[in-house]
This record gives sequence, C-alpha cells and structure tokens, in this order.
Amino acid sequence: MNSDPLETIAQEARAAGMLLAGLSTQIKNRALAGMAKHLIKNQAVILEANAKDIRAAKAKGMKLGLINRLALDEYKISRIADSLVLISKLPDPVGRVISKTTRPNGLQINKIGVPIGVILIIYESRPNVTSDCMALCLKSGNSVILKGGSETLHSNAALFKILQTAAMEQGVPQGAFQLVATPGRGAVRKLLDLSPWIDLVIPRGGEGLIRAVTRVSKIPVIKHAKGICHVFLDASADFEKSMAITLNAKTQNPSVCNAMETLLVHEKVAKRYLPKICLALEDKGVELRGDEAAQKIVPGIKRAAEKDWASEYLDLILSIRVVKDLKEAVQHIQKYGSQHSDAIVTENDKAAGEFTRSVDSACVFVNCSTRFSDGGEFGMGAEMGISTGKLHARGPMGLEELTSYKYVVLGNGQVRK
Amino acid sequence: MNSDPLETIAQEARAAGMLLAGLSTQIKNRALAGMAKHLIKNQAVILEANAKDIRAAKAKGMKLGLINRLALDEYKISRIADSLVLISKLPDPVGRVISKTTRPNGLQINKIGVPIGVILIIYESRPNVTSDCMALCLKSGNSVILKGGSETLHSNAALFKILQTAAMEQGVPQGAFQLVATPGRGAVRKLLDLSPWIDLVIPRGGEGLIRAVTRVSKIPVIKHAKGICHVFLDASADFEKSMAITLNAKTQNPSVCNAMETLLVHEKVAKRYLPKICLALEDKGVELRGDEAAQKIVPGIKRAAEKDWASEYLDLILSIRVVKDLKEAVQHIQKYGSQHSDAIVTENDKAAGEFTRSVDSACVFVNCSTRFSDGGEFGMGAEMGISTGKLHARGPMGLEELTSYKYVVLGNGQVRK
Repeated sequence: MNSDPLETIAQEARAAGMLLAGLSTQIKNRALAGMAKHLIKNQAVILEANAKDIRAAKAKGMKLGLINRLALDEYKISRIADSLVLISKLPDPVGRVISKTTRPNGLQINKIGVPIGVILIIYESRPNVTSDCMALCLKSGNSVILKGGSETLHSNAALFKILQTAAMEQGVPQGAFQLVATPGRGAVRKLLDLSPWIDLVIPRGGEGLIRAVTRVSKIPVIKHAKGICHVFLDASADFEKSMAITLNAKTQNPSVCNAMETLLVHEKVAKRYLPKICLALEDKGVELRGDEAAQKIVPGIKRAAEKDWASEYLDLILSIRVVKDLKEAVQHIQKYGSQHSDAIVTENDKAAGEFTRSVDSACVFVNCSTRFSDGGEFGMGAEMGISTGKLHARGPMGLEELTSYKYVVLGNGQVRK
Repeated sequence: MNSDPLETIAQEARAAGMLLAGLSTQIKNRALAGMAKHLIKNQAVILEANAKDIRAAKAKGMKLGLINRLALDEYKISRIADSLVLISKLPDPVGRVISKTTRPNGLQINKIGVPIGVILIIYESRPNVTSDCMALCLKSGNSVILKGGSETLHSNAALFKILQTAAMEQGVPQGAFQLVATPGRGAVRKLLDLSPWIDLVIPRGGEGLIRAVTRVSKIPVIKHAKGICHVFLDASADFEKSMAITLNAKTQNPSVCNAMETLLVHEKVAKRYLPKICLALEDKGVELRGDEAAQKIVPGIKRAAEKDWASEYLDLILSIRVVKDLKEAVQHIQKYGSQHSDAIVTENDKAAGEFTRSVDSACVFVNCSTRFSDGGEFGMGAEMGISTGKLHARGPMGLEELTSYKYVVLGNGQVRK
C-alpha cells in the first residue's frame, strides 16, 4: 500500500488517463459544454473565492499588475466559459489521421494522434489557466495534475470543484483532473520524481521556477519561460502601423509574456517616428529607457543600462534602441531575446523575408502586434502556455501539441526481405 | 578562452548549426550525393578499418550476433550509399509549410519547419548509424555530435572522415559534423552537461546506457530504448500469414530492436498452429520457451520463467504464451511490452481495430512483420533510431522528426483588441 498522497494523485491520474484515451468525442464535448454552463451558474461562488485571494494578495502588498492577473470578474468568467465552448467545437485530436501513405510493398502506414498520458502543469497567478488546462487536457485525452500558485489557492479550488463535478456528470472519470493543494516547493519536488506516472511537466512562470523544475525533474519538461519580445521598426516601416503596433505590444496588457519589452528602430526612421511614438507611450504611462541615439532624439528619457536589454519588465517600462540596419536588429534579438515572439514593421517584402528567416523565435510577426502570440488568437481555443523550447511543441500549445501519435500499419501478410 | 576539447566540439557544432540552418537544399543534396560517391570510392579504407574493429571484438570474445551488427562488407556499404542518395532525394524538411491558416482578423499564420540545432547521438555497434545520422542531420539542417561505441572506433573514424571531407567539398561547414573519439562514459557525462550548446540527445543502446543518460542529462533526451515486441495470432489468424510473420519477426534479424521476443497465441488456434510453427522456428535454430499451455501443445520445449516475458533476447530465443482472448493478449503487452512494435495476425477487422486502439506502442502492425518498424521501410531513407518515448518523436525518427517549427505570422497592421 502506498500512503504518499502525491503518489496516489499521480497513480489515479495514470489510471484515469487510460480510460480517457478511449473516451468518445461526444462525451468529451458534452462534458466541456457542461463545464461552461456550471461555470456561469456558479460564478458567485468563484468570485467569492477569488475575492479571498485578492484580499490576501493586497495584504501581502502584491503589485497592482500581478493583482490584475489574478482578479476575476463576470466578464472574465464569461470569457473562460467561451473558451470551454470553443474547445468543445474544435476537432478531436485523438484518433486524427496525421498522415497516410502506402509503401511499394502495399503496406498502408497511418500516423494517428494519441494522448500523451498524464500532464503536470505548474503555474502562477491567472485562474483561467486552471480551466483552460482542464479543458485542453480533457479534449486531448490526457489526465492533468494542476499545481497552481498559493496566491490563487481559493480561486483554483472553486473553479476546479465546479468543473470536475460538471465533467463527471457527463461520464469523465474523476481521476482525470487532479488538484494539488499542498503548498510550497516540496510538493513540486516530490511530483517531479514521479516519472512512472507522469509523462510531461509544463512549468509556466518566472525564470527561477523554470530553472528549478528543469534541474530536478525526472520527467520530460516543456518550458514556458520568459518573453523578452521585440518590435523592430524597419527603414520602410509605415508610420501608422508602427505607432499602433508599438502601443499595442507594450500597453494593451504589459504583464504578459508576449508584451514587447524592447523597441528597435532603424536609424533611417528614428528621427521621424520616435518623438511621436514616445509621446504616445508616455501618455499611456510607459517609462522609457533609451540608448544614446534614442536619448538624442527624445531628450529627457532615461538611459538604458546593459541589463535593460535582457529584462522582462512585465510592466509599463520599455527599452528603446536605434539600430543601423536590419542585421543589427536581428543580432540584438539573437543576443538578448528569449526566442518567444518578435515582430518587424516593414513595407519591404525582402526585409520581411530576411527577418522571418533569421529570427529564431517561436513566433515571428510581420506588421502585427506580438500580443497575437496566443493560443486563442491562433484559433486553438485556449493554450497550455507558450513553449519557449524547440522540442515537441513550440509557441502556443493547444490540442494537437498535447498529443503524441502511433503508427498503425496495415498489411496483408508482408514480411521483410 | 576555453580549453575543454568537448566544450570546443559543442561550441563548434553550435556555430556551424547557425550556418546549416540557412544552407540551400541544393548544396545539401549535392553534399549527400558526394558523400555516397566518396563512400564507394573509399570502401577499401572503410573495410580495412572495420576489419580492425572485428579483430578486436573477436579477441574480446564478443558474441557472434553482435559481431554481425558491426561487420561491414561491400554490399552493406553499397546499402549505406543508397541511403545517402535516397535522403538527397527526399523533400527538404527545413522551410516546409506544415500548416497555413487565415484568421478572421486577416492574420495569415504559417507554421514552418526549422532545424532543432545541435543533436548529440550516443550509439553502439552498427557503423551505418554514423552515416545515417550524418546524412539525416545534414538534410534537416542540424549539426550532429557522434559518440559511437568503442567497439566501432576505427570503422566510425574512417566513415566520418570520408563523409565529412565529401560534404565540405560541396560547401557544408566543417563543424556540422563532430566525432567524439574520447572513449568511455566520462566523455558522455561531460557532453550531457553542455546544455547551452546541445539541444537534444538521442541515446541508442542498452537499458543501462539509456537510464544513465536520462539520469544525468541537462539536455532533453529522446530515448531509443529496448524493443520487447510481440506478435499475437488471433482466433481468426490465417495460418500461412501466421507462419510467415512469426518466422520473419523472429529470425530475419534477431539482433535488432524490432525483432519479436514473445509470441502470443489465441487458444482457439494454438493446437492447430503451434506445432507446425514451432517446428519451423526450431529448424531455424530458435530456442523456444513456453508457458504451461504451450508446453502441453509442443512437448519438449523449455518452460518460460516470469523474467522471460520481460526479456529483450536480441537472439534466437522466443517465449510463447497461449492466451484465452484478445483482451488477455493486450494485457500481456501492456504489462511486459516496451511500447515499441507489436503485431496482430487476424482476418477479423473488429479484432484488428480493437488491437490497434488498445495497444499503446509506437508501431502497431496488422498482418505484417514487426521488422517493418524501421525508418527505411517507412520511406524515411534512414533513421536516427526508433523513439520509445511519446514526446516530440515516436517510432522511427527521420527528417521531419529532426525538425522543430516556427510560426511566421503575416499581418497588415493588426493589433489586439
């Protein structure tokens, strides 16, 4: 008999995973629809739990940006429910035919989507992650073990209970969803040892968390690390697009990983564009830190230190550098970027092509905001996070990225010569 | 300055990888064609080096099966050269459009194949792995660091030098291929620490090696572990197919991971099929180990012990078990299999469907030999190995499995609402 509660959680998740893999699309979709309904019906319970978390966060002196990340309201809950409905309408990735070929010897080779098994997600803040991960894992036939942050303990517990109950009503095995309530890093360390029962761990959060998980995990890790995202205004950048994209990438939601942290400006447009753009950014409350050239063009802004280029502010702060050409912009991104999301604003197709080929990031954008680096915006319904690694999944992780595959090979007596 | 030679190797591989990512398809294909030519032209050199390895292996008392794995001859070299030519003719996985969607806001989202970066492969025996990995990594734009076994030191060194020279003649950067000549586990341990310069490690070999690599590696690992492969003769199995597939899966090349280790026979056909099949197997020199029921049907065969079901013999030995139905066969495979390759022989479509859905292995075969679990047989030209994990790549790893992707998103000024 095994008495460790975390081991029991992982074993229950494994057992449920084997049932989930065979669950029909219909049952999964009904469960998702039911989860959306229960969420709306019980929103008072959720908001009450969330208020507790916010009170505790304020008492601890948490920054406003972070409190905004964890705060729920009726609108946000309706958006979470919308995601559940959307995911119910996406094609089932389990059993999908990824490819189908017939070999000269007549063998028919089918590559078929299958669940990965049991997925552990370690995350901070935003309670919508709880719902998004439950929904994506259910639809992709994976059990999920949720280890949220202590700052959203009550919100997550409320959401979890409501969603689990709704799913079970439609025939989803109880063990498919597991919430780890034990606080602290000790529980994480123990979970990362349970490689026989957990197939994949997804850490979402600060660098310290990611490093710690990667160092001790016995389970394969897909990192969802920091986003030091750049927007580069090329020599041929359109002014209106430059203004709109810069403002959006920096200010529409500065506390998230796909927000811009550094603006790179081609010297040919710097003098014309920067003064107006900087004014607009300051109007939105953005603190600006420029290199020497930027300071000359926009007097009064702070000087960026070396460490600014490597900083993920997650705040209304922006570093600005004037570069002499596209190549220097790409080199800056290679040196300081985090291979997350980077954008170029240009009317020159050749420059766009060179930028998208040379920048080795999960998402490379031409004439649009880095804020589009998002599973929802990519049509995935939601996301497990944004992978900053290159293996298995890169960029926003949705349903397909939560599956593996098997080869089903059909023959008629063939043997190998 | 950095004086560690292994670190230098990894850094050179990283630097070359950045050039390789941008190498044209034409240069890569010419290099592959040139490599094939040089291989044939220099086969005397290769055979001489190989003879040294074989003499050393015989002096050490290596088993004949293993010596056969490392031995080269003119035919085998011509097959290696064929693989190089084949790979030169396959589509370039770098830059391929994996998917292309347009969102309601007009954003065009392109998912584009890109190299992973630097790949370390740790392998034993078979010198063709050296050539196959060099070719697949080159075509997929990855640098490769080769750490072969000490038993093929001379063969690998000869192959490596010939192939590297040929590739360089066509403009492939020298650093793209790295051969680690330092023998022993110390070098492996050091390499597995070099996560800044190596993106992926692929260990191919015995369980001890895989476990050791997985335990200490700071670099993500795709395991190429053991193959405990099964053939299940269902109640409706055709006799001729059963006979041919069983013989082929066991005896055509018993020393490889996709050879059958256990035969499962439905009790409804056991009495009719087993005596003849066992006779044919014994004619081929196979030692049989059966459960009680099999022993009753084929008197004189040894009794299988519990550990036989979990053994990868890699030899002319077969364990045989009589099962009461398909479900018991699947349960046996779930309990003892290694999720590598398993086959069913059946004329019943429903049984075939149940087997392919329930058996969670990389390759599930219907009415054909498990020996088809192979990159070459799957049309990949060659293989880096056969992944027994579920993340990133499963089953035979070819060109596409050696790539990651990036999203290139084209807009016209879009910002997020």
